[in-house]
Amino acid sequence: MIIIIKPNTEKARVTEFITDLEKTPGLQTHLVEGLHTTIIGLVGDTSKVDIDQLRTNDIVEEVKRVQEPYKNANRKFHPDDTIVDIGGIKIGGGHFQVISGPCSVECEEQICEIATRVRESGSTMLRGGAFKPRTSPYAFQGLKAEGIDLLLEAKKKTGLPIVSEVMDASHLPLFENVDVIQVGARNMQNFELLKELGHIRKPILLKRGLANTIEEMLMSAEYIMAGGNSNVILCERGIRTFETATRNTFDVSAIPVLKRLSHLPVVADPSHAGGINWLVEPLALAAVAAGADGLMIEVHNNPAKALSDGKQSLTPDEFDGVMKKIKALLAVDGRVIG
Amino acid sequence: MIIIIKPNTEKARVTEFITDLEKTPGLQTHLVEGLHTTIIGLVGDTSKVDIDQLRTNDIVEEVKRVQEPYKNANRKFHPDDTIVDIGGIKIGGGHFQVISGPCSVECEEQICEIATRVRESGSTMLRGGAFKPRTSPYAFQGLKAEGIDLLLEAKKKTGLPIVSEVMDASHLPLFENVDVIQVGARNMQNFELLKELGHIRKPILLKRGLANTIEEMLMSAEYIMAGGNSNVILCERGIRTFETATRNTFDVSAIPVLKRLSHLPVVADPSHAGGINWLVEPLALAAVAAGADGLMIEVHNNPAKALSDGKQSLTPDEFDGVMKKIKALLAVDGRVIG
Amino acid sequence: MIIIIKPNTEKARVTEFITDLEKTPGLQTHLVEGLHTTIIGLVGDTSKVDIDQLRTNDIVEEVKRVQEPYKNANRKFHPDDTIVDIGGIKIGGGHFQVISGPCSVECEEQICEIATRVRESGSTMLRGGAFKPRTSPYAFQGLKAEGIDLLLEAKKKTGLPIVSEVMDASHLPLFENVDVIQVGARNMQNFELLKELGHIRKPILLKRGLANTIEEMLMSAEYIMAGGNSNVILCERGIRTFETATRNTFDVSAIPVLKRLSHLPVVADPSHAGGINWLVEPLALAAVAAGADGLMIEVHNNPAKALSDGKQSLTPDEFDGVMKKIKALLAVDGRVIG
Amino acid sequence: MIIIIKPNTEKARVTEFITDLEKTPGLQTHLVEGLHTTIIGLVGDTSKVDIDQLRTNDIVEEVKRVQEPYKNANRKFHPDDTIVDIGGIKIGGGHFQVISGPCSVECEEQICEIATRVRESGSTMLRGGAFKPRTSPYAFQGLKAEGIDLLLEAKKKTGLPIVSEVMDASHLPLFENVDVIQVGARNMQNFELLKELGHIRKPILLKRGLANTIEEMLMSAEYIMAGGNSNVILCERGIRTFETATRNTFDVSAIPVLKRLSHLPVVADPSHAGGINWLVEPLALAAVAAGADGLMIEVHNNPAKALSDGKQSLTPDEFDGVMKKIKALLAVDGRVIG
Repeated sequence: MIIIIKPNTEKARVTEFITDLEKTPGLQTHLVEGLHTTIIGLVGDTSKVDIDQLRTNDIVEEVKRVQEPYKNANRKFHPDDTIVDIGGIKIGGGHFQVISGPCSVECEEQICEIATRVRESGSTMLRGGAFKPRTSPYAFQGLKAEGIDLLLEAKKKTGLPIVSEVMDASHLPLFENVDVIQVGARNMQNFELLKELGHIRKPILLKRGLANTIEEMLMSAEYIMAGGNSNVILCERGIRTFETATRNTFDVSAIPVLKRLSHLPVVADPSHAGGINWLVEPLALAAVAAGADGLMIEVHNNPAKALSDGKQSLTPDEFDGVMKKIKALLAVDGRVIG
Repeated sequence: MIIIIKPNTEKARVTEFITDLEKTPGLQTHLVEGLHTTIIGLVGDTSKVDIDQLRTNDIVEEVKRVQEPYKNANRKFHPDDTIVDIGGIKIGGGHFQVISGPCSVECEEQICEIATRVRESGSTMLRGGAFKPRTSPYAFQGLKAEGIDLLLEAKKKTGLPIVSEVMDASHLPLFENVDVIQVGARNMQNFELLKELGHIRKPILLKRGLANTIEEMLMSAEYIMAGGNSNVILCERGIRTFETATRNTFDVSAIPVLKRLSHLPVVADPSHAGGINWLVEPLALAAVAAGADGLMIEVHNNPAKALSDGKQSLTPDEFDGVMKKIKALLAVDGRVIG
Repeated sequence: MIIIIKPNTEKARVTEFITDLEKTPGLQTHLVEGLHTTIIGLVGDTSKVDIDQLRTNDIVEEVKRVQEPYKNANRKFHPDDTIVDIGGIKIGGGHFQVISGPCSVECEEQICEIATRVRESGSTMLRGGAFKPRTSPYAFQGLKAEGIDLLLEAKKKTGLPIVSEVMDASHLPLFENVDVIQVGARNMQNFELLKELGHIRKPILLKRGLANTIEEMLMSAEYIMAGGNSNVILCERGIRTFETATRNTFDVSAIPVLKRLSHLPVVADPSHAGGINWLVEPLALAAVAAGADGLMIEVHNNPAKALSDGKQSLTPDEFDGVMKKIKALLAVDGRVIG
Repeated sequence: MIIIIKPNTEKARVTEFITDLEKTPGLQTHLVEGLHTTIIGLVGDTSKVDIDQLRTNDIVEEVKRVQEPYKNANRKFHPDDTIVDIGGIKIGGGHFQVISGPCSVECEEQICEIATRVRESGSTMLRGGAFKPRTSPYAFQGLKAEGIDLLLEAKKKTGLPIVSEVMDASHLPLFENVDVIQVGARNMQNFELLKELGHIRKPILLKRGLANTIEEMLMSAEYIMAGGNSNVILCERGIRTFETATRNTFDVSAIPVLKRLSHLPVVADPSHAGGINWLVEPLALAAVAAGADGLMIEVHNNPAKALSDGKQSLTPDEFDGVMKKIKALLAVDGRVIG
């Protein structure tokens, strides 16, 4: 950690500050005095140092962090890829998976038909929303507990593990038989929820918030991991920018950056990123080419009648076409789905 | 609502689509046929029409909304300013209030000293965090229930109504004696929490999310109001942009825009917007000049030792200086605090 | 074009406004009267209608455009892909090209060695900056005329067509023998320069501005095309967002969106987008997978001594490795470079 | 400057790197070795050190700047406010001025009528565009040389100094009698133009680019000042963000931040920032309250017929009302216009 001292600070005050800093066990300081600038290098275990508090000292101009503020999620301390195991289906460390299904679970016929179709095309997990975060209180809010039951029905018929979003810690008991619990973009910094998810052992799919940096995303993973649950899958799904031609801006760079900084598996959601069905294919392929460990794609048997997000859903036939291209792309690196 | 039809769509399909649309009671259509473009104007009560679903129809190129998607929060339907009453302290409709206090409640001595000092300077409400949303799981997370108790202690001593942030609906019972419940920026779209807050009658201070538009903020207010609670105070506190010289970019325009679109009171939080103590004064004055109904300002008796956000806190003396300037500015329009 | 009238406008004023609008030859109006809203549909040739002027009318609430504001660059009016021919090297319409070379031309030995090496790896054009836009007036500003001469020398030795950036219309005479003239991101809306480039017939590589939308980029292409020069190549190179882990955010979606809206060839610049050499490979592959017609990649024989942008440059050996992967990816669709 | 070395770098390589760094006259290094991190502090005159080149060294993880990269524009080296003198009208250092007039000069009658009216309301300078940067090549592009002549005519009639935008260095001879030359937002990083403006001695009004940081704005001022022209006025006019309710997001914080970092006068343009006439008043007042040294406001005698930007223009009567409020606000601090 680098502490830059304000110009013209009295020497005695700097000495006093250094004495204070060295009181913390395990911390050492190094003083660097330049012509216009005095700098204190703080070394040792700085993970517990409160950077904001240092900044409030009136002789401090700025504090710059040298080490990342996350530990459990940091590849420096865990060089090997984490492989998350979902009932035998592995993701990360070379294992690639495709999660697909409707935005919302609507009825048994819908979810079961879609599940059957996506499995035929090679999807290895089924997604479906039971609790739906909607901008408008007047929009369809999901089937809730009934939606989870219908997903379990579809799982029974197809064997596909299921992924569904939790919106509040109090609903967690309903998710007992859900294979992967999704944290949506709007809840990426719902820290109370993250803490609860640290106390269970189920795999968590953590979506990036619309305005959250890559570092903040890793700090949210750290919340879950600090509680003891290391089964975290990161999901890039687009960020909010000034561009209005697409619903969000798909930050494809986040995939290689996350994989360099962290050992956790990284998947991409091209459906939410673009918000338009004809963008799903190029974005899915871009994510694969950039090194993603998996994809999450919305599929609906009748998009024009979907109760949510129909605009970005593929039909099962369209999905089948995209899957063929994904498989061809994976094959270039000798990869396969599964 | 305006529906733009894709070029070269067969006439029969357009007719069929119009017939479908007119099945909804209370909706009428108007067909506009141009040289290159066919448009359907949809009029009547369009508040229940799902715009996303219309967009999925394969003959539809784009759908544009003409009316705002919020009703209860909309000034068009409620032309008069809403005045929120907090135990006799009124905000909105010409009433201006200042909420101040520390980021986190730390101990009885701290909160009571600050409360006494800010009341002397003219603050009319006391803020203090008991539950703290922190990016890092290793940072101070607040005193929780004990923090609320200490706030109530300070209220007893000073008579100031108290404002504190809730992070999860399950904590609401602890807020029974809190005067105003704050929804933090990271929870602005925590829809489960918003629904719960719609079922109580306490005033809610709703902070704008870092990446949320003004329209989304009003939709979140709508969630609370749709449940029956119309005591909502809106709070601009900076948005996330590319600029790194300030922690967030204070969107001062949001104040006049919100007041034009909605009848709800609008306050500003210059402390979180800028993230630096010397920015609090100019941003607070800018907010007043732009028409805000109140301010929320962080004050700490010893910022260098604050457990959170010390960098942006004013000392009680600095706060006193800022308050003098705020009062002088209000006086230009014949306004006063209270 | 849709004109939304303010609520409670007198009928006579609307009629008067419509009469005014219909005075423009080739324009027809359609009146749509709803319960709360009155809308005028304006159809015919609206390309000359000044949308901002309509907005100033005091009975107008909002005006929404239905058709794109660009004509020459619009795929609707030119369904077939444009193929730009650079001395026999074709780009667009299925032809894929790789442009590579150093950020700045530094000396004959440097540019000739790099040119030879990139040609061996399969690059089909050579880039090199002679005029350099630098944020600091104290940074290296390029070799200017001498730089162009050195590029021509390298072209003579290798046969590779050359691409170089122009910063001011007054320098255009120096570019007489340059094969492709590049407009940099900071000049995307230097309209005086764009007009001049419309009067020549040389291919123009137009880079997207850091804060410019896809529509604005197409409007800048329109400036060049309106002058008569239809040899425009569009280049996505990252936009500015809140994320600081990468220099810019590479908007990979822009590639399929631009190709859908326009018939012009689209290339990507992964070097400037990410700003770090280890990001070049994943971003280049993502661009190819998303459908780009070409790539522009920075290569330097000694990045650590480069006078500009060394951090994002590949060595010739690293470039060779990336090219092998690009070729393998193109082969999936039966594509080749050239 | 702080250089962070990659973990596990051989000691010999670090020593060699330090020897290299110390070859530059006037630079000293300090080595700080921590448990996980090695840091080199670089002190002395670092203004000529190329930070990007240091980053390319393969033992370097990151380089962080401690001092600002601008000198002439830096308040640290010039603590007193710069006062720019425009034919006797002073701005900065406590002097406040209002520049107003139409977006575009349209005809003699228009510009002279507006000039007379704004002078009556207390405006001390006249603005008017002769060269207009327009997104569309089909929109009105300004009267060019004739526009400058008409501005001079209005100056003769009213005595108001004139401000007009230059779009290309080749037009500078036409600006010989223009009092203040404006650099528009889209040209803030047109470095060739900035260099030319450094060679003249006329005051320059430099507008912030839509995607440019405060530091980049000061670097563009540095370009002009490095050429010898220190008469630079900075202008905040809104930045591009995700918010669509306003044309741009007015960054009111930029005013106090610029005034703290630099000694140059800072004005605000509420007309372009908001893009809507009813936002001009609150944003103008906010700018004054935040400490601006002046304002630039668009006024048109017939906004509905304006050839550009009518939507954001005030009528002379509206402007008169806003001016009364500006004067009242200035009076709170004992300030006056002029």
